[in-house]
Amino acid sequence: MNLLEKTLQQIHPIDPSWMDAAARRQLELTKPPGSLGRLEEIANRCAAIRESFELTANHPRIVLFAADHGVCTEGVSPYPQEVTAQMVLNFLRGGAAINALARAGNIELKIVDMGVSITLPPSSELISRRAAPGTRNFCEEPAMTGAEMYAALETGIELAYESVLAGCDLLGFGEMGIGNTTSASAIAAALAGEPVEAVTGRGTGAGDECLARKHSAIRRALAIHGDQFQTPLGILRCVGGLEIAGMCGFCLGAAARCLPVVTDGFIATTAAALAVRLSPSSSGYLFASHRSTEPGHAYLLAMLEQAPLLDLGMRLGEGTGAALAMNLIQAAVAAFTGMATFATAGVSNK
Amino acid sequence: MNLLEKTLQQIHPIDPSWMDAAARRQLELTKPPGSLGRLEEIANRCAAIRESFELTANHPRIVLFAADHGVCTEGVSPYPQEVTAQMVLNFLRGGAAINALARAGNIELKIVDMGVSITLPPSSELISRRAAPGTRNFCEEPAMTGAEMYAALETGIELAYESVLAGCDLLGFGEMGIGNTTSASAIAAALAGEPVEAVTGRGTGAGDECLARKHSAIRRALAIHGDQFQTPLGILRCVGGLEIAGMCGFCLGAAARCLPVVTDGFIATTAAALAVRLSPSSSGYLFASHRSTEPGHAYLLAMLEQAPLLDLGMRLGEGTGAALAMNLIQAAVAAFTGMATFATAGVSNK
Repeated sequence: MNLLEKTLQQIHPIDPSWMDAAARRQLELTKPPGSLGRLEEIANRCAAIRESFELTANHPRIVLFAADHGVCTEGVSPYPQEVTAQMVLNFLRGGAAINALARAGNIELKIVDMGVSITLPPSSELISRRAAPGTRNFCEEPAMTGAEMYAALETGIELAYESVLAGCDLLGFGEMGIGNTTSASAIAAALAGEPVEAVTGRGTGAGDECLARKHSAIRRALAIHGDQFQTPLGILRCVGGLEIAGMCGFCLGAAARCLPVVTDGFIATTAAALAVRLSPSSSGYLFASHRSTEPGHAYLLAMLEQAPLLDLGMRLGEGTGAALAMNLIQAAVAAFTGMATFATAGVSNK
Repeated sequence: MNLLEKTLQQIHPIDPSWMDAAARRQLELTKPPGSLGRLEEIANRCAAIRESFELTANHPRIVLFAADHGVCTEGVSPYPQEVTAQMVLNFLRGGAAINALARAGNIELKIVDMGVSITLPPSSELISRRAAPGTRNFCEEPAMTGAEMYAALETGIELAYESVLAGCDLLGFGEMGIGNTTSASAIAAALAGEPVEAVTGRGTGAGDECLARKHSAIRRALAIHGDQFQTPLGILRCVGGLEIAGMCGFCLGAAARCLPVVTDGFIATTAAALAVRLSPSSSGYLFASHRSTEPGHAYLLAMLEQAPLLDLGMRLGEGTGAALAMNLIQAAVAAFTGMATFATAGVSNK
């Protein structure tokens, strides 16, 4: 049995009796019942995930998965493909949005090269797990071989397991990969069965012609690979990305080790949706951070039955939405664990 | 000229040319244009408030204003009035939701007794600025005398000025006062000209009979004091609260000293709305943190033309919504000041 199969076997649904017990505990805390709204839901779910009221969220970590996409040759992004590598170097130097937000939120950030097309200089800060130098053009052939896909999935699982060993108690993930909204839209179309136009947006800022090329590329991919879409792994292998496979594995690894895991925007959420198709029980461990302006995101969130915590008109990726939401989860946990009860505080209840 | 008049004279509108300059700066940072959504708007407005790109948000402070309400004798809250004093003691011991959220968000918290009906034991942690031991029952007479109202307003101004001297670069405020949703609904009805039922909710959890008593109390107050509602100070004096006057002054003081200031839920936002009526220029310094489930809040936010940053179903007050939003503002400032440019990072632009 391989690591993916073992991991899938270990994932169990969260226990609703822990949610109920946490909800009863909330009623003892010095606030009107339900007055912390979704912060209470978050804490109650964290209690079910950890099967404990002794919750912590002191060691948050975001893993940022980067990879390149063969479909870029179809002209689907306004940015040249070398921007993926350039941005990885920017992450390593601390100059990107996710670096700033992680610093502001005291979140540890790990950068993983899942298959950037340009060979990056070795760096102690860069985790190198290249299954391939990017995907193939999925308009012509499957994006990945089975071996590449499994390697990327297992990397994601291993990175989640390693995070647990490092003492992390709250995980998030994000991505970087020029062209990957095209891959994500193809996955969303395949998963949700929605028309290409409904789930495809302008990504980093595609103009009308670029958007038309995205539509065309995705339509051709769906026509070529549609017979492989009966399984989530078929979809992932044919039209996914190495970073998407990594994030999918990361979700599964977090669920197998009973840690809350926070998804980011559209592309990250395709990985989460594939993880939930592979293991419906993993959904209880997942928190949707924000609603991206990418139109496909709403379909995925609806499919996952997740209401995002934030709606700030963001569409950057990198884990930026996850970073903001992780601070909300920390606040929810802090209220649940740090508040006095009516009894101990000597406050009169209704 | 008194402190309020001097403060009002010092407030000037934020300069839109600084917003434009900040928006141009955003285009140089290593992200697709506009991809940080509302975080960009926040940072651009902070640049206009501070008239600088050298923004900081390292020293956030929430001031929590507590006071009692004479209208409680009308049976408008399911909680007994002594809960105000009990909760102040809970704040001082660190056991309330705002304590937990402030700790989680590294926000300094100051507690002010603006007029709690029960005399609290002296504490080095409690700022005592009692203009009166609570308001009068506004169903029978004005809630405050002019002298009490001016004292509370000036306390709020002074607390904002003191925060600037202490080095704070981001301010927030919140409140505690059993019965104060009744006062806030009366203010909202007077300010927005909306029917009592539309702007009055269940507060901390009023049942049907309690809600009917709130409606009745507010209707009687509007009938008695309606001729005083031509000015914001007339509204504040007749149906407001000492903590609401304090928060109103705090908004004005923050605007006069050019600091961003974050409002909380329904009650705090009535204070912000009164401040903006007193000085329309102060609105540029104000950030709406969240949308409370109290129905009156939406009317006030619309009147202020403010879209709240969060919508988490919260209705607690204490500054809890402000605390969460202040962390978002810190993230926005961190991205604006901490990101590399396309030029310095060697990242190809479109």
